[in-house]
Amino acid sequence: MTLTISPLEGLPEVRPGADLASLVTKCHKVEDGDVLVLAHKVVSKAEGRVIRLDQVEPSARARELAGTEADARHIEVVLRESVRVVRTRGPLVIAETRHGFVCASAGVDASNAPEAGTRVLLPLDPDASARGIRTRLHELTGRKVAVIVSDSFGRPWRQGTTDVAIGVAGLGPLLDLRGRRDGSGYELRSTQIAVADELAGAAELVMGKTSGIPGAVIRGFAAEGDGSARDLVMPAERDLFR
Amino acid sequence: MTLTISPLEGLPEVRPGADLASLVTKCHKVEDGDVLVLAHKVVSKAEGRVIRLDQVEPSARARELAGTEADARHIEVVLRESVRVVRTRGPLVIAETRHGFVCASAGVDASNAPEAGTRVLLPLDPDASARGIRTRLHELTGRKVAVIVSDSFGRPWRQGTTDVAIGVAGLGPLLDLRGRRDGSGYELRSTQIAVADELAGAAELVMGKTSGIPGAVIRGFAAEGDGSARDLVMPAERDLFR
Repeated sequence: MTLTISPLEGLPEVRPGADLASLVTKCHKVEDGDVLVLAHKVVSKAEGRVIRLDQVEPSARARELAGTEADARHIEVVLRESVRVVRTRGPLVIAETRHGFVCASAGVDASNAPEAGTRVLLPLDPDASARGIRTRLHELTGRKVAVIVSDSFGRPWRQGTTDVAIGVAGLGPLLDLRGRRDGSGYELRSTQIAVADELAGAAELVMGKTSGIPGAVIRGFAAEGDGSARDLVMPAERDLFR
Repeated sequence: MTLTISPLEGLPEVRPGADLASLVTKCHKVEDGDVLVLAHKVVSKAEGRVIRLDQVEPSARARELAGTEADARHIEVVLRESVRVVRTRGPLVIAETRHGFVCASAGVDASNAPEAGTRVLLPLDPDASARGIRTRLHELTGRKVAVIVSDSFGRPWRQGTTDVAIGVAGLGPLLDLRGRRDGSGYELRSTQIAVADELAGAAELVMGKTSGIPGAVIRGFAAEGDGSARDLVMPAERDLFR
């Protein structure tokens, strides 16, 4: 099995209410079994998940965290998108989002915002976003395509971000090898592989942050099953790092 | 730029002292600019980094952690490979390795061990392993190939493992975007992308844990720079999760 990963080139600027699936079909021919990875920013923009800072009144907590280094209105947006603050250092906030993801700034993003003084938020329900795009792609093309909505997350202990899946449709995000044996007959230790995260990271390699390519199409991956990106969230009772 | 990721098929069982680069050239034709990703297990086996449990005397600490659930000799090997124990739960040990990586069991692996009662350890210096393979590939083929040695790591907060880079040669593991601007002229927030980890994860998608494919060749990635997988280790002073 050889995989190919092609950048999604030529997607126009995405406006609120945009039919993303239709825009995708105009710049890329999808086939059955393809995995379409879309950076969440285009999904969030299509869904109107953009906030203007001049409409945000920062709380005392936001002003305190922001100090003199950051815009307290930005921190206020981060806190509103958080259900739990995990760590802070100066104005840097690592938080748990409503979806259960732990990431910097609860996913609130200043880069790639449509205009100065705005912030792009994560989709309210990225699985639903992915499912909607998958369904609409099927309507438009007759093709069954798996869809991943991705974001760039940092990691404890390791430098740099990698793209991970925050929404999925038409694909099991975890490949479960429990019970399968390796070549020597041993039961495998790494029993679950986060393939949706590996696919999102692979797509990032052709997306080129600065060149405005907001997605990629992966061909040749035999997607199995179905599921939710929330399957990728470690349950609190198994989480050694809460 | 389209990437292709091809599994490294037909590699024979790797024995201590094996010339891995030579074995690779017998089953795959590499080109300038390719990225060869090798699962650390074949590298460790070639380097003789395998230990027999019957030659291990467990310490009191290992017996205590193992309890009745695990083999105290296995835990002893894990402790010997650790410079710092980060978390434990029952016999599960999350530890920092001599290289600075934080992972389960300090990378000590029972699956894919060459025989029962043995454990595969991480290479002593995976960057040196990668560099040696790169140099030898150049001798044999005249091609300049980047090399990544990979392992499957779990992550805090997220289920499932993803493959990451533990050794690199001929490639900068972090793509540094500091100072570059996005399409709207904003300075990018995610200033460094851990491309070596994304390449390792992408390779895993075609490796198929159970089918004995120990690597992959990625073509079409414009590798820049050079560096060490230790560049991927978060410096202690910037680490919010020590």
